[in-house]
Amino acid sequence: MNTEPSSLELLCINTVRVLAADAVQKANSGHPGAPMGLAPAGHVLWSESMTYDPGHPEFPNRDRFILSNGHACLLQYSYLFLTGYALTLEDIKQFRQLHSKTPGHPEHGLTPGIEVTTGPLGQGFANGVGFAIGREWMAARYNKPGFDLFNYHVFAICSDGDLMEGVSSEAASIAGHLQLGSIIYLYDNNHISIEGDTALTFDENVGARFEAYGWHVQEIANGNDTRAIAEAIEKAKAETGRPSLISVRTHIAYGSPNKVDTAGAHGSPLGVQEVRLVKENLGFDPDQSFVIPDQVLDFYRKAGSKGGPVRENWNRLFESYREKYPDLARQYEQSSTGHLPEGWTEKLPTFKAGDQLATRKASGKVLNSIASSLPTLIGGSADLSPSTDTMLDQYPSFSADHREGRNFHFGIREHAMGSILNGLVLTPGIIPYGGTFLIFSDYMRPPIRLASIMKVRPIYVFTHDSIGLGEDGTTHQPVEQLIGLRSVPHMTVIRPADANETVQAWRAALEHQGGPVALVLTRQNLPVLDQEQYGKAEGLLRGAYILSEAHSSPNLILMASGSEVQLILQAQPRLKEKGIAARVVSMPSWELFEKQDQAYRDQVFPPALTARLAVEAGSTIGWLRYTTLKGKVLGMTEFGTSAPGEVVFREYGFTVDHVVEMASGLLAGG
Amino acid sequence: MNTEPSSLELLCINTVRVLAADAVQKANSGHPGAPMGLAPAGHVLWSESMTYDPGHPEFPNRDRFILSNGHACLLQYSYLFLTGYALTLEDIKQFRQLHSKTPGHPEHGLTPGIEVTTGPLGQGFANGVGFAIGREWMAARYNKPGFDLFNYHVFAICSDGDLMEGVSSEAASIAGHLQLGSIIYLYDNNHISIEGDTALTFDENVGARFEAYGWHVQEIANGNDTRAIAEAIEKAKAETGRPSLISVRTHIAYGSPNKVDTAGAHGSPLGVQEVRLVKENLGFDPDQSFVIPDQVLDFYRKAGSKGGPVRENWNRLFESYREKYPDLARQYEQSSTGHLPEGWTEKLPTFKAGDQLATRKASGKVLNSIASSLPTLIGGSADLSPSTDTMLDQYPSFSADHREGRNFHFGIREHAMGSILNGLVLTPGIIPYGGTFLIFSDYMRPPIRLASIMKVRPIYVFTHDSIGLGEDGTTHQPVEQLIGLRSVPHMTVIRPADANETVQAWRAALEHQGGPVALVLTRQNLPVLDQEQYGKAEGLLRGAYILSEAHSSPNLILMASGSEVQLILQAQPRLKEKGIAARVVSMPSWELFEKQDQAYRDQVFPPALTARLAVEAGSTIGWLRYTTLKGKVLGMTEFGTSAPGEVVFREYGFTVDHVVEMASGLLAGG
Repeated sequence: MNTEPSSLELLCINTVRVLAADAVQKANSGHPGAPMGLAPAGHVLWSESMTYDPGHPEFPNRDRFILSNGHACLLQYSYLFLTGYALTLEDIKQFRQLHSKTPGHPEHGLTPGIEVTTGPLGQGFANGVGFAIGREWMAARYNKPGFDLFNYHVFAICSDGDLMEGVSSEAASIAGHLQLGSIIYLYDNNHISIEGDTALTFDENVGARFEAYGWHVQEIANGNDTRAIAEAIEKAKAETGRPSLISVRTHIAYGSPNKVDTAGAHGSPLGVQEVRLVKENLGFDPDQSFVIPDQVLDFYRKAGSKGGPVRENWNRLFESYREKYPDLARQYEQSSTGHLPEGWTEKLPTFKAGDQLATRKASGKVLNSIASSLPTLIGGSADLSPSTDTMLDQYPSFSADHREGRNFHFGIREHAMGSILNGLVLTPGIIPYGGTFLIFSDYMRPPIRLASIMKVRPIYVFTHDSIGLGEDGTTHQPVEQLIGLRSVPHMTVIRPADANETVQAWRAALEHQGGPVALVLTRQNLPVLDQEQYGKAEGLLRGAYILSEAHSSPNLILMASGSEVQLILQAQPRLKEKGIAARVVSMPSWELFEKQDQAYRDQVFPPALTARLAVEAGSTIGWLRYTTLKGKVLGMTEFGTSAPGEVVFREYGFTVDHVVEMASGLLAGG
Repeated sequence: MNTEPSSLELLCINTVRVLAADAVQKANSGHPGAPMGLAPAGHVLWSESMTYDPGHPEFPNRDRFILSNGHACLLQYSYLFLTGYALTLEDIKQFRQLHSKTPGHPEHGLTPGIEVTTGPLGQGFANGVGFAIGREWMAARYNKPGFDLFNYHVFAICSDGDLMEGVSSEAASIAGHLQLGSIIYLYDNNHISIEGDTALTFDENVGARFEAYGWHVQEIANGNDTRAIAEAIEKAKAETGRPSLISVRTHIAYGSPNKVDTAGAHGSPLGVQEVRLVKENLGFDPDQSFVIPDQVLDFYRKAGSKGGPVRENWNRLFESYREKYPDLARQYEQSSTGHLPEGWTEKLPTFKAGDQLATRKASGKVLNSIASSLPTLIGGSADLSPSTDTMLDQYPSFSADHREGRNFHFGIREHAMGSILNGLVLTPGIIPYGGTFLIFSDYMRPPIRLASIMKVRPIYVFTHDSIGLGEDGTTHQPVEQLIGLRSVPHMTVIRPADANETVQAWRAALEHQGGPVALVLTRQNLPVLDQEQYGKAEGLLRGAYILSEAHSSPNLILMASGSEVQLILQAQPRLKEKGIAARVVSMPSWELFEKQDQAYRDQVFPPALTARLAVEAGSTIGWLRYTTLKGKVLGMTEFGTSAPGEVVFREYGFTVDHVVEMASGLLAGG
């Protein structure tokens, strides 16, 4: 059996190897080894196994490709360029330079054909599980007999690092459980990580582990054997009920006489001399760089051009679909372009003043009220749905047997949940949300950051938002999480003060674009504020608003978010008795407030009115921005403790008495 | 074969079941189901399998017990009370109440016998891997022929949630690789999580997965079969070369007629009526609560008293050891009480002014200079040691064959690294550190928080600390991580400005107590500051200090940390040309500065001197505290980008020109 590529194939593959070596050398920075080892696998994927149209990277039924080991991006950039995406050889020469389309790790939205931003290991692996769930869900929703609109595969290349990171274990377990047969992952089994041989720390039986998760596992002994890779991929495609892992034994920096199979080739240029040796070794002219033989470009452009007719057929299919299923077609087109159905807000509930209701409960009622109006709103929680109130009661759970399900059981796997949400949100038409306790947002910081970098909008439902959760104690009471989320660029944090603000918070989240939104909700009951007496809850949409004006020209501003708004509201009449005219500002979202014009911001916080007290049961850091140094912050500078919520609040000074005392002190001092 | 407990055993076990039901009911909050299902396993552990001395919870060779599913803490509290630890029935009646010793999740330092604070799932599992590594390391260092000082086991109970969390996958892979035979984990296989049957999301083959990691796996079909549990534990003890997982099929809320095997028994009281039914069902008086039959207390106190003679034997053994190995004995006693060897600072290096050196490189030189003086300083990195400079060059790596090794290869598993460090730091005598890129601190937020809650001191070496890392780009450039770490109570963050400040940073870290320390270091070179010309680097120990005084009475303060100190230092003479007398403050650590007295703080930042500019290539949040609202912050409000480091700095305005311009503007405006 011939296990080596043909001569043209070999020339193609070696062209990519040399291109990777050249580009890293020119940048004098980067990771040449992985693309050189993976070039044959890449060749099979882009010339044979995957369906895509370089001229239309957004073709809805394209196969998705994820480079989970994002540092190997020259592999992807090379094939994107060669097959005809809007990425030029000049772009590759600009590898890792300012404002180039070829950054150090692949960035979605910057480079055509990059499905998701990768780099932090394990993320791409888990994002792909989200893509595969999205594919099944879209297929269940839109496919009809004779109209197989969505039947694409989700390909990924992942490295030992991806498989070591816990998030991939979480996601793999979910993928096996859900029988996500569209997943075809190639494992770049090159035995080398930065510290040396992977045997230093990674000698588990990867294949057996994945079989235990319910995956179909294949091993390829020779990573240069393109036929074996192609055949394994075909077998994987036939495995419609199990995700597939294909372990490909590659050699890092293959083609480099002195650096092959060495850790030194992982994250550093090979060196000018070694790049010359690579070229000599692979039959290239060592005096030339960035050489693309005509027959190579011709071969790959032809491979890339196969997708055009596929896309045109799909478009024709969709036109027939539109005739037969006009409602579904309209829904798909509307939702996949990010538009909400007209009138979706009509079913938003209004809560009665005086009722007692935790904002998590209000959130659950909102979700269930709008679920029928927003058919592509889907989500779940990390085994906390009875607590986070994130179930859509009238809809089934997503499972191997119910691909139409809208409720997701992520298990106790917050990190995978966050990364899967990123895969779902990148499936046009899906509006995904995920819930857990605010404290466990710590487990999913990396995907939150990546959603923020990509400016995509998963919605996080973070409940049990402060020491107010009570008895679960220190380990479960958030202190630094609010500021931790607020500090992420492009992130929007909303902490509503009552049930009606929670309605507006969902409205803000669903209408938001350009980054994730975190809804931060109480475990404990809060009274519903009277919108006749106080400012309307729509004020939330501006981030902060005057909830209750002072009885006369204000000489003090009280501000708070969430449950603490109750404290400042109750302090207001007490301060009035002392002759202090306090304005009460509900401030559910710094980020929404910062988007308002200066006039509005000055209206809420008049610059001359510097006696200000902020109250929030979280870290005090950052509040000075709104209180000024003359003001004060009543917050948490310690961890919490285990006791009933109201006792804990008292213990840390969150009482009306204390607010009145601090506020009075401010004026006495000023 | 008799597979049911004897009648006294059964009474013992049922006493614990009823106690758990009673305590949760009284608190009207908590998790009764798991302790009720686990009572037989607990019975075997505390009456038979584990070695411990309730009167001396710190007995050095005790077996360690970790309740990874911390919500089941009534199991542990019950056995601690029953076997004779300083925990009373009255304490248990105070379950989840303010200032009690029985909080909602177990807290190390608060309750005797609690080895580590647990609750966030997966952590205890991974902490135990740290304990087991520590045990091997201590044994390799101190055990001698005839002196088996350290040969304890590491027991844990873990739940489905623990096994779903990715951190346990990471840690399990490490434990298998390192052949940590002292690990004996019982898996509470009760098939129930909060959302319902675990089959909803968790139907992987757990046993096969752990075998793939290299673990010894046993299955027990009947969780009430105490003999089977005891025998499995004995088999696990005999498995000295493999960690053991014993899957025990339990039934949540066993003994409760209506709540057994239901999700409702997981996290809520059973209800007054159901608690009565439990008592009737188990042969207890339904009208009485918190009943401990005499023979039960007697049985467990006797079980607990077995540890006393063991401890006394050990003490005698240690006295003989002291005679034979006085140096080792002294080292052990000194290090295990948290003392550093006298004169350890003598080998701290000094770096020559004008040399160019990244602070990560300086850190590596410090580590290697002091390694011989601090023999219990051990650590490693998450597959980045060539980049984080965390290798102790003269020492071997810790492995199955080299238990004395001081370098750890955690693999690409930051989360497990953080959790393992917590296990190591709780092994008295070990000073552990762990390194990765600052951006990947996001992967290990939960163990960082737990170290902070416990006020223990792992040292984190976080390098590549800003956009200055350059070409790796957006995904790798920290922006919000500094403020994210600073916002954690009890955490100390130190970002030195040059090589000599890095020396002092290590000194501060090693002398620190009461919480973790993060050293935040550059990838890029920085000039070594001239300590004759500028303030001495020892100033770092006070958190902030005047690095370069203004040429005349200052009318402006420039402050910065890390690499940005260079910018403000270069801006100083430029401002002088404009007639501006700028004081330059190096501010490597907010937390160390906040510990200084008000006089010192006012000396560095005179209250009247409000024209202030802070420069740091991270989130601007929090700096207002030091700049006042009249000042300004030059920081990052966006994510970074891929380009050479100096280009990225320029792109975001980190230039001397810009600092001069902003500083001048402040005075012009003021």
